[in-house]
Amino acid sequence: MTSAAASRIKAGIVGGTGYTGVELLRLLSQHPQVELTAITSRKEDGMPVADMYPNLRGRVDLCFQTPEKAALEDCDVVFFATPHGVAMSQAKTLLERGVRIIDLAADFRLQDTQVFERWYKMPHCCPDILAESVYGLVELNRPKIAGAKVVGNPGCYPTTVLLGLAPLLEGGRKLIDTSHIIADCKSGVSGAGRKAEVSTLFSEAGDNFKAYGVAGHRHHPEISEQLNALAGGPVGLTFVPHLVPMIRGMFSTLYARILPDALDTDFQALFEQRYADEPFVDVMPAGALPETRSVRASNQLRIALHRPGNGDQLIILVIQDNLVKGASGQAVQNMNLMFGLPESTGLTHVAILP
Amino acid sequence: MTSAAASRIKAGIVGGTGYTGVELLRLLSQHPQVELTAITSRKEDGMPVADMYPNLRGRVDLCFQTPEKAALEDCDVVFFATPHGVAMSQAKTLLERGVRIIDLAADFRLQDTQVFERWYKMPHCCPDILAESVYGLVELNRPKIAGAKVVGNPGCYPTTVLLGLAPLLEGGRKLIDTSHIIADCKSGVSGAGRKAEVSTLFSEAGDNFKAYGVAGHRHHPEISEQLNALAGGPVGLTFVPHLVPMIRGMFSTLYARILPDALDTDFQALFEQRYADEPFVDVMPAGALPETRSVRASNQLRIALHRPGNGDQLIILVIQDNLVKGASGQAVQNMNLMFGLPESTGLTHVAILP
Amino acid sequence: MTSAAASRIKAGIVGGTGYTGVELLRLLSQHPQVELTAITSRKEDGMPVADMYPNLRGRVDLCFQTPEKAALEDCDVVFFATPHGVAMSQAKTLLERGVRIIDLAADFRLQDTQVFERWYKMPHCCPDILAESVYGLVELNRPKIAGAKVVGNPGCYPTTVLLGLAPLLEGGRKLIDTSHIIADCKSGVSGAGRKAEVSTLFSEAGDNFKAYGVAGHRHHPEISEQLNALAGGPVGLTFVPHLVPMIRGMFSTLYARILPDALDTDFQALFEQRYADEPFVDVMPAGALPETRSVRASNQLRIALHRPGNGDQLIILVIQDNLVKGASGQAVQNMNLMFGLPESTGLTHVAILP
Amino acid sequence: MTSAAASRIKAGIVGGTGYTGVELLRLLSQHPQVELTAITSRKEDGMPVADMYPNLRGRVDLCFQTPEKAALEDCDVVFFATPHGVAMSQAKTLLERGVRIIDLAADFRLQDTQVFERWYKMPHCCPDILAESVYGLVELNRPKIAGAKVVGNPGCYPTTVLLGLAPLLEGGRKLIDTSHIIADCKSGVSGAGRKAEVSTLFSEAGDNFKAYGVAGHRHHPEISEQLNALAGGPVGLTFVPHLVPMIRGMFSTLYARILPDALDTDFQALFEQRYADEPFVDVMPAGALPETRSVRASNQLRIALHRPGNGDQLIILVIQDNLVKGASGQAVQNMNLMFGLPESTGLTHVAILP
Repeated sequence: MTSAAASRIKAGIVGGTGYTGVELLRLLSQHPQVELTAITSRKEDGMPVADMYPNLRGRVDLCFQTPEKAALEDCDVVFFATPHGVAMSQAKTLLERGVRIIDLAADFRLQDTQVFERWYKMPHCCPDILAESVYGLVELNRPKIAGAKVVGNPGCYPTTVLLGLAPLLEGGRKLIDTSHIIADCKSGVSGAGRKAEVSTLFSEAGDNFKAYGVAGHRHHPEISEQLNALAGGPVGLTFVPHLVPMIRGMFSTLYARILPDALDTDFQALFEQRYADEPFVDVMPAGALPETRSVRASNQLRIALHRPGNGDQLIILVIQDNLVKGASGQAVQNMNLMFGLPESTGLTHVAILP
Repeated sequence: MTSAAASRIKAGIVGGTGYTGVELLRLLSQHPQVELTAITSRKEDGMPVADMYPNLRGRVDLCFQTPEKAALEDCDVVFFATPHGVAMSQAKTLLERGVRIIDLAADFRLQDTQVFERWYKMPHCCPDILAESVYGLVELNRPKIAGAKVVGNPGCYPTTVLLGLAPLLEGGRKLIDTSHIIADCKSGVSGAGRKAEVSTLFSEAGDNFKAYGVAGHRHHPEISEQLNALAGGPVGLTFVPHLVPMIRGMFSTLYARILPDALDTDFQALFEQRYADEPFVDVMPAGALPETRSVRASNQLRIALHRPGNGDQLIILVIQDNLVKGASGQAVQNMNLMFGLPESTGLTHVAILP
Repeated sequence: MTSAAASRIKAGIVGGTGYTGVELLRLLSQHPQVELTAITSRKEDGMPVADMYPNLRGRVDLCFQTPEKAALEDCDVVFFATPHGVAMSQAKTLLERGVRIIDLAADFRLQDTQVFERWYKMPHCCPDILAESVYGLVELNRPKIAGAKVVGNPGCYPTTVLLGLAPLLEGGRKLIDTSHIIADCKSGVSGAGRKAEVSTLFSEAGDNFKAYGVAGHRHHPEISEQLNALAGGPVGLTFVPHLVPMIRGMFSTLYARILPDALDTDFQALFEQRYADEPFVDVMPAGALPETRSVRASNQLRIALHRPGNGDQLIILVIQDNLVKGASGQAVQNMNLMFGLPESTGLTHVAILP
Repeated sequence: MTSAAASRIKAGIVGGTGYTGVELLRLLSQHPQVELTAITSRKEDGMPVADMYPNLRGRVDLCFQTPEKAALEDCDVVFFATPHGVAMSQAKTLLERGVRIIDLAADFRLQDTQVFERWYKMPHCCPDILAESVYGLVELNRPKIAGAKVVGNPGCYPTTVLLGLAPLLEGGRKLIDTSHIIADCKSGVSGAGRKAEVSTLFSEAGDNFKAYGVAGHRHHPEISEQLNALAGGPVGLTFVPHLVPMIRGMFSTLYARILPDALDTDFQALFEQRYADEPFVDVMPAGALPETRSVRASNQLRIALHRPGNGDQLIILVIQDNLVKGASGQAVQNMNLMFGLPESTGLTHVAILP
């Protein structure tokens, strides 16, 4: 074994049959410092990954395995691309073997277990591990993630809303009316996952637009918990997600009312400075009009600020690829950080346009 | 009760939760001579149809009912928009009560029960009724349909292939090499129905193109049986269906080699004369390029002939809306004929473009 | 000539080569009380309409003509489906001949000519006619439209925003904070018209989502002028339009803050009562989630109210087909009213789903 | 300057405002051995490339320049992503300066200048350079390309048809009836380029399917010239291109009749052996059903063979991304070969799915 191979991170994926799973496979199979060692699916045991995902033909030789066969405990890191509840049930065993965990589901997103239990309809089985886990939004939590053993990878909507609002709330700033923030968010259909459901059939979701989850969406408490922490107090958020007839892409239109004392603020400068050193956050010129395809299949997130008539209404437009920065790319970004690699390693793909 | 209402056809639908069902509802609810009296769905018993299909809000007041409650035997006609096998199981009872039957599934399409059983994996339970049933392709079987008690509504692909080839084969004509006809067909995704399946999810079928069923598709034996009947002998057909990322629409590109003795034939005139009096078959000018949207949501089928370089290769382009002329519109056309109404009654909607 | 034919409305269309033009043709060609007598296009003079719009083959026999040949002055009504500025240049002549005018462009939407000139970059050439014209939003202006000689057909966005907010503002009601209403609106691509432009190419607008016109959109002053009139004073509106990768459909998500004194209001009842007798406005049950396809190709507009946590934030969801209720269907509705016909005549098509 | 930098290939692009241009930029900006030095557009002189193509923000710093300023003669290689006729007009000057040329338009595809002139409606201005140029289909012409100074990059359709048929025709094989081969081809809309045209608007090409160019398409003579060369005699080809409502992707369904003496051939083995060492041609298992998304944004081309009922009809399914293997990826593959680099350098991106 060469020293190069020896130094590669051994990565396993639990439950890789969904979209975040295949996207992890795409990213990790091209990552120069990763060796993909196992991928589990109880149902597809023995099936070559490339049979399910033909884009991986000739690139990924792994077969799906049952968790029993997969020897996940020999991995350096295990990604959970599973339904909610799976990661927490396996976390203890893996941690005891020194395996680090990145969960793409919700098990380690919400610190308040009562909130978790209300929204996910299951008890949290390892509150002690949860207490030590870190919310994996790199741009907010970089130092903690670098030392984390368990990372809860953020939801897609929360990533856009939090990065779009953080500069306005951090550091005790009193810039906007935090009692009535509006997040009007739009997601491509892949955000609903690769489940066989009528509502996301081509003939149902195509050539159509709708809101959903207005009465309550699981990402709402996740956003709120983080916003409250950023602002140091309760933030009032109205959150309306919509479904867009496109495969990938997320667009959040955020509305905040500027406080009278803050009308002189140079918001453009504020945002530019806040994200100046962030490799994956692009603050566009004031008044720019980002489009989701400009980040398709890349880990980039772009922000553009608008202030019509220079009045008291601030509009923040945020875009990302929901499967990359909103899920699997962010997970790899977290992994890079946790293993001391340059944060952009394996994440520099240029977006696909058209 | 006025005499007008008295004379309306009482129509019932069995299994109206799929796309052919909702399309029947759209057409029948606007049909001036039809009274919709019942729609069954064991699973959705009690649910207003308009809750499942909000386009019918304010237009259709029916609720789904179990077959037991629906009193189908009081209908004049019952449409089966069900999985294969349902219509034949209920046909005898309904016929005894004088109800006419139009089956949109395959139970009464194939006269050869052995072929039926091989392709549909179930025995045919009423070969006697099958023998008296009529294949409901109006343009080929008008007189028989007018007197039929049971009509097997054609499959979507067969409708395009048969109407595209009939003028070449009818009447003992020897115009093309019938041993090697090619039908390269393309269908919108609604043709796969409203079943929860991964392969027809928006994120799977969108921005994608593929062939399917190349090794064998159920419409192949249906087309072959009819072609053989038209030609008075065996016809060799290669049939390759493809899936197009659009909701509605079907496009068949048919390739036939002209026989040496037939090279002088005026194929354009042949097709124009054959379909001169057909209200729903439009033979376009020679060399025209039909597009599926030109028939979207209408019962029209269009044909265009091409003969590159005036050589021996004939290309026939055929388009339809797979849910209308390829399914529910054709079923209503059959009903009109069976009940002595003008064939176009309730079927004159102009196609939706764009 | 029979009396039935004699009594039909003779209708002409100026500039029918765009999407509102073909939609007018679809609707008027199926309207039982209309005789289409002329359609003009200087560029396409002599071309059969059905050659440009193959969905009209066999249904519309007209050819495009130059305005000189078209004898528009013999029409009872002329629809302008033209760029801004055309209708006002021809209005005087037509009015002198007793022809009524429905303009689908902006010439007769804004009563304030200074605002018109700022946004449309042209002087208004007939302020006197403008002063007598009526803003053609039937549900707000029914009596005036019935007597109008010139109707300015509303823009697509204004139709949704105005009907979504009217019950909150009419009659001097003090229910919401009118200083900060937000309209986050989403439109299908057909709203951009049938112009050859890069930004609306399939490969640009497909699989993509973006905002546009945030710094200023021509529908903003139109909405504001009407809102101010409804509220009897200045209304503060933030308006952000977005482009959805679908052909038809418009979805407006409206956010209004309920005033403290109005927290007890039954908004659902308010809306239901306001629109109880409107044939084309459907107030859905509280908490419903409308989808644009439920009105595809129909003149229906649907509204659903949400009030998360029963708090002070009211969310109003409004959908329509931008080419029908948002343009050509509304124009026909206006025509029906102007000529004393039942308002729904020719507009009862059931929406196309899927 | 380090030796690494010194050894990088200096590449220029003429006319980079279209889809093949932006795709070249995406690929070359990530190519480890290339330095992008110039990109020209007379119309967009001075505009940063990343302003037109926001996916390149932060990745490509170049601005468009006029050809005069661009110093193309200092490049090692110049790609022409221009309309037909531009490359041949500049070829002589560049060649004299030692610059190698890869033309993505048609100037160096057809060796027969009479055919070129008939189809492209312009005289060929440098038949001498044409005679020395090489048709850049690597899998057929690898040795010649390695030594070429001018490469005519193949059209997208020809790439699929030629690679799908080559194993059947090469080496004087008599396997299929070469008088009547059928190529039923389907392309995503990006194949039509980034020109402002009505026919490729989202609202025209979306939710629609059509054939085009049936009477004659410029890729037909290109395919025929190469097929004739492969077969050593005239090949009869019927070619019908169709437009699919997807952005990227090409699917060709090829039909060939097996000659009676060749019925025992193991076609699967023939294809597998022919392409065993090709990095970008994937012969799938017999009976496989490739889908275009499995190669989206990658340089891979996949082939699957079908022989229904083991009869005499051979069906070859071929897929590629029309902008990559069908255009810009193939151009980079040619460049690698011309400059002695490993052929896959910079072309190993995993396809994007979903």
